[in-house]
Amino acid sequence: MNEEYRLWEKRQIEKGIDIGWVKKEIKSFRVETPSWGYGDSGTRFKTFKEKGAANSIFEKLDDAEQVNKFTGICPSVAIHIPWDKVDNYNEIKLYAETHSLQIGTVNPNLIFADEYQFGSLCNADPSIRKLAVKHMLECVDIAKIVGAKVLSLWLPDGTNYPGQGDFRARKLWLIDCLRELDKAMDDDMRMLIEYKTHEPAFYHTDIADWGMAYSLAEKIGKKAEVLVDLGHHAQGTNIEHIVAFLIDEGKIGGFHFNNRKYADDDLIVGSINPYELFLIFNELIAGKLDPRAARTVNNISYMIDQSHCIEPKIPAMIRSVMNIQTAHAKALLIQRDSLKKAQQCNDVMTAEAIVREAFETDVGPLLRMVREEIGLQPDPMKAYLESNYEKKKQKR
Amino acid sequence: MNEEYRLWEKRQIEKGIDIGWVKKEIKSFRVETPSWGYGDSGTRFKTFKEKGAANSIFEKLDDAEQVNKFTGICPSVAIHIPWDKVDNYNEIKLYAETHSLQIGTVNPNLIFADEYQFGSLCNADPSIRKLAVKHMLECVDIAKIVGAKVLSLWLPDGTNYPGQGDFRARKLWLIDCLRELDKAMDDDMRMLIEYKTHEPAFYHTDIADWGMAYSLAEKIGKKAEVLVDLGHHAQGTNIEHIVAFLIDEGKIGGFHFNNRKYADDDLIVGSINPYELFLIFNELIAGKLDPRAARTVNNISYMIDQSHCIEPKIPAMIRSVMNIQTAHAKALLIQRDSLKKAQQCNDVMTAEAIVREAFETDVGPLLRMVREEIGLQPDPMKAYLESNYEKKKQKR
Amino acid sequence: MNEEYRLWEKRQIEKGIDIGWVKKEIKSFRVETPSWGYGDSGTRFKTFKEKGAANSIFEKLDDAEQVNKFTGICPSVAIHIPWDKVDNYNEIKLYAETHSLQIGTVNPNLIFADEYQFGSLCNADPSIRKLAVKHMLECVDIAKIVGAKVLSLWLPDGTNYPGQGDFRARKLWLIDCLRELDKAMDDDMRMLIEYKTHEPAFYHTDIADWGMAYSLAEKIGKKAEVLVDLGHHAQGTNIEHIVAFLIDEGKIGGFHFNNRKYADDDLIVGSINPYELFLIFNELIAGKLDPRAARTVNNISYMIDQSHCIEPKIPAMIRSVMNIQTAHAKALLIQRDSLKKAQQCNDVMTAEAIVREAFETDVGPLLRMVREEIGLQPDPMKAYLESNYEKKKQKR
Amino acid sequence: MNEEYRLWEKRQIEKGIDIGWVKKEIKSFRVETPSWGYGDSGTRFKTFKEKGAANSIFEKLDDAEQVNKFTGICPSVAIHIPWDKVDNYNEIKLYAETHSLQIGTVNPNLIFADEYQFGSLCNADPSIRKLAVKHMLECVDIAKIVGAKVLSLWLPDGTNYPGQGDFRARKLWLIDCLRELDKAMDDDMRMLIEYKTHEPAFYHTDIADWGMAYSLAEKIGKKAEVLVDLGHHAQGTNIEHIVAFLIDEGKIGGFHFNNRKYADDDLIVGSINPYELFLIFNELIAGKLDPRAARTVNNISYMIDQSHCIEPKIPAMIRSVMNIQTAHAKALLIQRDSLKKAQQCNDVMTAEAIVREAFETDVGPLLRMVREEIGLQPDPMKAYLESNYEKKKQKR
Repeated sequence: MNEEYRLWEKRQIEKGIDIGWVKKEIKSFRVETPSWGYGDSGTRFKTFKEKGAANSIFEKLDDAEQVNKFTGICPSVAIHIPWDKVDNYNEIKLYAETHSLQIGTVNPNLIFADEYQFGSLCNADPSIRKLAVKHMLECVDIAKIVGAKVLSLWLPDGTNYPGQGDFRARKLWLIDCLRELDKAMDDDMRMLIEYKTHEPAFYHTDIADWGMAYSLAEKIGKKAEVLVDLGHHAQGTNIEHIVAFLIDEGKIGGFHFNNRKYADDDLIVGSINPYELFLIFNELIAGKLDPRAARTVNNISYMIDQSHCIEPKIPAMIRSVMNIQTAHAKALLIQRDSLKKAQQCNDVMTAEAIVREAFETDVGPLLRMVREEIGLQPDPMKAYLESNYEKKKQKR
Repeated sequence: MNEEYRLWEKRQIEKGIDIGWVKKEIKSFRVETPSWGYGDSGTRFKTFKEKGAANSIFEKLDDAEQVNKFTGICPSVAIHIPWDKVDNYNEIKLYAETHSLQIGTVNPNLIFADEYQFGSLCNADPSIRKLAVKHMLECVDIAKIVGAKVLSLWLPDGTNYPGQGDFRARKLWLIDCLRELDKAMDDDMRMLIEYKTHEPAFYHTDIADWGMAYSLAEKIGKKAEVLVDLGHHAQGTNIEHIVAFLIDEGKIGGFHFNNRKYADDDLIVGSINPYELFLIFNELIAGKLDPRAARTVNNISYMIDQSHCIEPKIPAMIRSVMNIQTAHAKALLIQRDSLKKAQQCNDVMTAEAIVREAFETDVGPLLRMVREEIGLQPDPMKAYLESNYEKKKQKR
Repeated sequence: MNEEYRLWEKRQIEKGIDIGWVKKEIKSFRVETPSWGYGDSGTRFKTFKEKGAANSIFEKLDDAEQVNKFTGICPSVAIHIPWDKVDNYNEIKLYAETHSLQIGTVNPNLIFADEYQFGSLCNADPSIRKLAVKHMLECVDIAKIVGAKVLSLWLPDGTNYPGQGDFRARKLWLIDCLRELDKAMDDDMRMLIEYKTHEPAFYHTDIADWGMAYSLAEKIGKKAEVLVDLGHHAQGTNIEHIVAFLIDEGKIGGFHFNNRKYADDDLIVGSINPYELFLIFNELIAGKLDPRAARTVNNISYMIDQSHCIEPKIPAMIRSVMNIQTAHAKALLIQRDSLKKAQQCNDVMTAEAIVREAFETDVGPLLRMVREEIGLQPDPMKAYLESNYEKKKQKR
Repeated sequence: MNEEYRLWEKRQIEKGIDIGWVKKEIKSFRVETPSWGYGDSGTRFKTFKEKGAANSIFEKLDDAEQVNKFTGICPSVAIHIPWDKVDNYNEIKLYAETHSLQIGTVNPNLIFADEYQFGSLCNADPSIRKLAVKHMLECVDIAKIVGAKVLSLWLPDGTNYPGQGDFRARKLWLIDCLRELDKAMDDDMRMLIEYKTHEPAFYHTDIADWGMAYSLAEKIGKKAEVLVDLGHHAQGTNIEHIVAFLIDEGKIGGFHFNNRKYADDDLIVGSINPYELFLIFNELIAGKLDPRAARTVNNISYMIDQSHCIEPKIPAMIRSVMNIQTAHAKALLIQRDSLKKAQQCNDVMTAEAIVREAFETDVGPLLRMVREEIGLQPDPMKAYLESNYEKKKQKR
């Protein structure tokens, strides 16, 4: 290994890469895991049960601790209300702390109640909009108790048929509701607005694309930012371009990492199109290195949002974190000065080659070394599987 | 009304349309409704319950009877095993008969059991393939009891990740299983093979497109045919072309009607893209009028396969049947001789106009007249809503 | 005909439709035709020549006059620089006027010159950006001469490969260029910013979606608005929702009408998905009737932008205008009070039915009557084909 | 380098990889370059000229020689008739031979003539079908003269509007034409049938998907096989699955390599989605190792079909070949025994990891070593750019 790393580092230094900086970036990168990623989930056809899958938020935190223990970069967890409802939210905070975790994000759920059949914040019935706002305000209260600074809003509202809803009226209702939410939030809290082309609504979704989320965030003000979920775009969308645009606008606040080949498939991030994930990280790092954009990028919350139907849940989460680290590390190895020069003289072939070559670099030696330097096992998956946790978990 | 119809008919006769034939075709067209369309269904996020939604197969048949009563063209019902499991299947047959219904199709379900987490007929574990075959053979037995002549096979098998499965091995296992099914079926029974791009599997689906279903049907033999579900194609697919191709090959056996804007949204057929539905019927009627293709077209089973999440279920079914009738009636009004002439001399504008103008025709006067002639109310939806059934149903 | 119209009108009045208002709206609707629609165009593989297709801008205006003569609603023409370059632009203005036409829009072309191989306003080379700005300023001058009030900007810039361009730098260059354009424009002129997913660039397009065009228009100020081309979206995009959103934002300025099944196919508008076109008009009329939105909608420029490769060009343009009129007329027949009521009580089935039924209405009797009332032949296509113009044109 | 390779090899041997076999496979792999890839091409908007781009077939062969010289695996060239029309085709053969090349494939062009505006082999006009068949037979004759064994058929036929053509009549005409072609071909010649969703036709394409090409190939007989062009599928299509299916059917005959993000963008293969290219090679190698499939795979013709609009043409071709080699080499490193075991016990995570890890391997050390072993420079791109050829070429 040492020989391997030594040789690897030598080649990178020859290319002009600042290995110290690369390692620092990798070590300081954090990604949040979702409580719901540790419980059973399924498709509309069937939910297959995993033996010992976490049920309560406390079991989920137990599992999240494992992911953090072996990867070292997942100290925070996102919770979902009411899925993680408890009587005393302070208990969640304390339990997290005793497991070296914290709660990063609170996610309201605007589809769980029967009242939401025809929508929540965009429902034509004002009493249901009120109910939905109340739920969101409750989530703000919970966030304050558990110490979460982010409220992440995915709005499942939409319609299934032409004519069913009045697009513009619904937009106004939505803005009113978000303003109430904004008022209830502390100044250091952030509201992340997610967008999605379709599902669960199949004709129109009220926040259907980044432009709509952006326009709403502009209206709500400085606490509001856009959240990019990698599975929420139409086929053929250039996501990294949207990311760059939002960075430039100072309006990107978070990511939901996952992957898909068709719709919102919620597969392990980086498993279907690893180059796309890398190109997104390319934009993030370019932003970080640009004084005009650094503040925005440094503020981004990176979160995993996946639905593991057939995968063992903790290994799937560890794999996801590792894939993110791989894409991040590769993007750090892009020779940015040479790239800028090639771009400036419209040298298509050279510019493309610089980016692709960084992707083709095997970052295994680097990641293994970084992990060892911070006291972890070089292969988190192997280390986890060799621990006794899976067996223990199945006895729940 | 009479004045309206008289005028309408006059214009059609001027165009050379044989009204007697058109009416005969409309009157003899049949579409099957699915038992599961009368029960609650939902998305992966939530199933909203309808008050009084049918639970047992008997309640579903009660509801199907209503649809048939008001539309007059839905005397058969598709059942789903094990959703419609009963102790004595003869009871289903008798109950259907006393409600002027019959069972047309039996649908095996290859995802309901925990064993099917990694697939059924394509599972790498031979014992699970055996289990799945056993379930299908049971469905054949049930079909024989209830008098159904069609076994409709939707295979949910597939994989979520590159590498997870061996595509070619799975194909061979599938063929072996289908051959066992074929052997168990009577000579006058038909096996309809459905295809689907994705969902519930998200990387590959073992029968992903019509070409795979067709290739399998060719191997299995004359009982096997392809079933086209309108929601199971990639965006931008020309479905009517596939239908024409399969008609020409003599290998189309059935339809699952529904509509979608994005993926397999299972919305009311004809509600999102009515022109596409009409163009499919255009191919069906062209086939029927062609001696080389008539036998194939006359043999097709027309079925609705929808999932009503927010719609009242019986009205949604009636609307679906009405939309099908509308598309069918419009396609019958195409001036086929003029169309053929325009096509023969590559007169693009005229050929296009002939087809579009038939679509733009208001077939309301015709359909209302046809319904009256067979003793129905002219507006099935209004008639149903004015009956007491919805209220009665809610008391279940 | 009279009997037909009388009966038609009676039914509409029964439904509560204000026929006087409907006719007034149809009569006052205008759509602009593009000069390039009268010349030959093709695919990347081949351009097939039409005998007598217009070459000069003057021949194109001759052809546009015919379309206006028979449809009565196309008095303005869009020109394209340098395709319609002449020595003295005043001649275009005068020629148009003597043919009862005016120039509505000037379209700069930012791909025609060899310098634009790697982009125009977003080119890394500042001298080429300058060249492109100069071309745009020339177009503003031309607009002032020909009396056009609209400058319509389609930016072909983009990249073909990851790494080729710096997304954020290009955005800044673009904004700078648009600001120069804005300064040169008179206060009563408008800059329409078009967006497009891809083509001619295949990895990223600098203005890729409505959100980017909107964000740019917001920055440029009140002269700048978004232009929606119906063929420039990803598959599965709900265009009518975007239209409604932009109306609500007061930032929609124009349309490029055409149709597609796959990419930017530039087919005759309304020929592939007529329901989508109707649903867009539904939003436009709803906006017009809403005091908050009327000013925006009344300001919209409706333009056709198609590429006729296999169709005879003038008939294709007449058909396009007729299809637009059909969609417009149908959308005017929606029972808006009933629709609002159904929406307010989340009555999905009724709301959907109201919209669909208006679409299913045959508006032939209405359009024929409206045309006669303004002194036109009831069937513009028939009237044109019976005129001698096609024969005359072929002798050019 | 030596140290790097030694270490690299050691790790692979530890994983159980047979390095000798891997090198043998890489050394024996061949990919054909297309004559048209050396000339100028563009989009429908503009063709930008490269200084010194090849015009005649002889200049194209000069350029192809360079690609073969530096990559070592491109000894054959595909020609396109009439683009490469000459008086005496024997001259092409001789010229190729004196440049260490041979002609692998002849591509008829069925869109170049004005007669083909409404189609060629599917044209409703029998005289044009006859013309098209004559052209194809001419191509067979040319193939016999130049020693090409493959006739590659891309059919641009299709329609732009519903109603324009009779799908089933066109299919029959097509089969008749292909049968004539089949008869004219020698027994050792192969007819590759390409499919494509759309473009240049925009409503329907007569051979729209692999299923149609497959069905035609089945009818024509053993000389006919399917050609897979990587840019000719709907978004979201799993191409590697289709490849595996066709291998299993023994009906895949060739590839057109290129890449796309949207439609048939014809970008450098492996530049947009390198993982997809690797997964296709995974299926090819799996097939090669399977006695049931090896014969089919060994028979496949690998060809590049790209359109370089902004890239320098020879470097773009060298990059394409290198990307193919990279994907091929990575796929050779999959631990197939372990993969099979993981698949057999439905171990999703392990199976996925084995495939992904091979992809993440840096094959640079291997490819550089292989090139040196066969007497080439380790970096073909660098070697080519350091040669004087680009400068020489510009003086043409």
